[in-house]
Amino acid sequence: MKIVLIGAHGAIGSAVAAELGQRHQIIPVSRSRGDYQADMADLDSVRALLHSIDDIDAVVATAGAVHFGPLTEMTPEQIGVGLREKLMGQVNLVLTAQQVLKDGGSITLTSGILSSDPIRYGSAASLVNGGLDSFVRAAAIELPRGLRINIVSPNLLQESVPDYGDYFPGFDPVPAARVAKAYAKSVEGAQTGQIYTVW
Amino acid sequence: MKIVLIGAHGAIGSAVAAELGQRHQIIPVSRSRGDYQADMADLDSVRALLHSIDDIDAVVATAGAVHFGPLTEMTPEQIGVGLREKLMGQVNLVLTAQQVLKDGGSITLTSGILSSDPIRYGSAASLVNGGLDSFVRAAAIELPRGLRINIVSPNLLQESVPDYGDYFPGFDPVPAARVAKAYAKSVEGAQTGQIYTVW
Ligand SMILES: NC(=O)c1ccc[n+]([C@@H]2O[C@H](COP(=O)([O-])OP(=O)(O)OC[C@H]3O[C@@H](n4cnc5c(N)ncnc54)[C@H](OP(=O)(O)O)[C@@H]3O)[C@@H](O)[C@H]2O)c1
Ligand SMILES: NC(=O)c1ccc[n+]([C@@H]2O[C@H](COP(=O)([O-])OP(=O)(O)OC[C@H]3O[C@@H](n4cnc5c(N)ncnc54)[C@H](OP(=O)(O)O)[C@@H]3O)[C@@H](O)[C@H]2O)c1
Repeated sequence: MKIVLIGAHGAIGSAVAAELGQRHQIIPVSRSRGDYQADMADLDSVRALLHSIDDIDAVVATAGAVHFGPLTEMTPEQIGVGLREKLMGQVNLVLTAQQVLKDGGSITLTSGILSSDPIRYGSAASLVNGGLDSFVRAAAIELPRGLRINIVSPNLLQESVPDYGDYFPGFDPVPAARVAKAYAKSVEGAQTGQIYTVW
Repeated sequence: MKIVLIGAHGAIGSAVAAELGQRHQIIPVSRSRGDYQADMADLDSVRALLHSIDDIDAVVATAGAVHFGPLTEMTPEQIGVGLREKLMGQVNLVLTAQQVLKDGGSITLTSGILSSDPIRYGSAASLVNGGLDSFVRAAAIELPRGLRINIVSPNLLQESVPDYGDYFPGFDPVPAARVAKAYAKSVEGAQTGQIYTVW
């Protein structure tokens, strides 16, 4: 399969590239690295990217920034970062991929455990993750041409503990390699509308 | 209690006003009717509203537009309607209410069944409802001064069947008066971080 992987150089993306790259052609995308650069928060950039590649079997997103900070000081602009980057960024991929994917192709997005298991300073991330999970459930029943869509909701990665571990007291971090298997299940399996929790 | 009710003249809001108005002082708000007018999608308007009223015990929102339409033709702008109106509108209420509510006061928002049980043309509503449910779960653990927050997730109302019933095949509509009880549970009860499904 030919798989476009947005966020391919990140903590999750590099594990997904390692897992799926064993069996498939990966086209790695980020804003700043490699032959294919695009900003998924910008619909025109997403369109240019996906229309420049022929015969795509799968689009996978492992990207999207969100602001973390105390709710008592949160501003709409700070919440807007996650809405624009992680939420609408991935929605832009869906809106475009549904037009360009090969029949029977798939889309796999990324949310996260904070949808259901909140932490201090994480309210914007909870909002974005919950919205994405529900959007995927809904999009699955409307996608044309046998296209499928799923979303992976990872726990904190073991690899990210040095960066964010202190914000996640009592969470049981998961290895990126295990999270990557959920993306393989989505891309190589036959299910649609699923939220794959790796918690 | 003194309860500010945004969307008081709508299908749900009028039932909530009838239920809670039996025991409490309701301050009805909408964009176009009554003494208190405000647009919850506009943070300045929300601030002006909530700072103009003393000693508020509860803020309840039963308002917020979302675009319905086929996913295959959906634009980011159409999804943006729900993000701006229903999602950020209610988030604006939370960001402001946490500063002005009396100690121990409460906030009650509205999402809807499409978060979990999607319909054709409802992907933007699913997205917004899922985001709000998760945001409320997260906000509950950070609100200061004993403030509480819950969200009511109604099924299709019996009263709305003439307007939207055809889009909800097989759904079992609920009376607005029953939905209104969930708002009473939130305002008059002691729970926080709950999603009250009336399905
Ligand atoms: N790490 C965790 O523990 C964890 C757990 C649960 C969920 N998640 C979620 O998983 C996603 C990825 O997390 P991560 O830790 O792997 O992130 P990361 O290490 O920061 O990597 C993000 C990758 O995405 C690219 N990227 C960021 N914004 C982009 C955009 N707008 N358009 C295109 N590419 C973009 C980045 O490269 P450029 O900067 O060059 O664009 C980078 O390659 C995030 O949404 C995060 O919330 C992470
Ligand atoms: N009806 C249903 O079957 C149903 C089921 C599940 C969920 N819901 C959700 O419940 C909410 C209310 O639905 P409804 O059917 O009761 O709506 P509705 O009958 O259209 O009433 C909406 C009310 O909110 C006010 N309003 C709308 N936008 C506003 C804004 N930005 N700022 C302040 N006030 C605003 C409207 O008055 P003005 O126009 O004067 O502002 C009106 O009073 C919606 O978010 C809907 O998605 C409805």
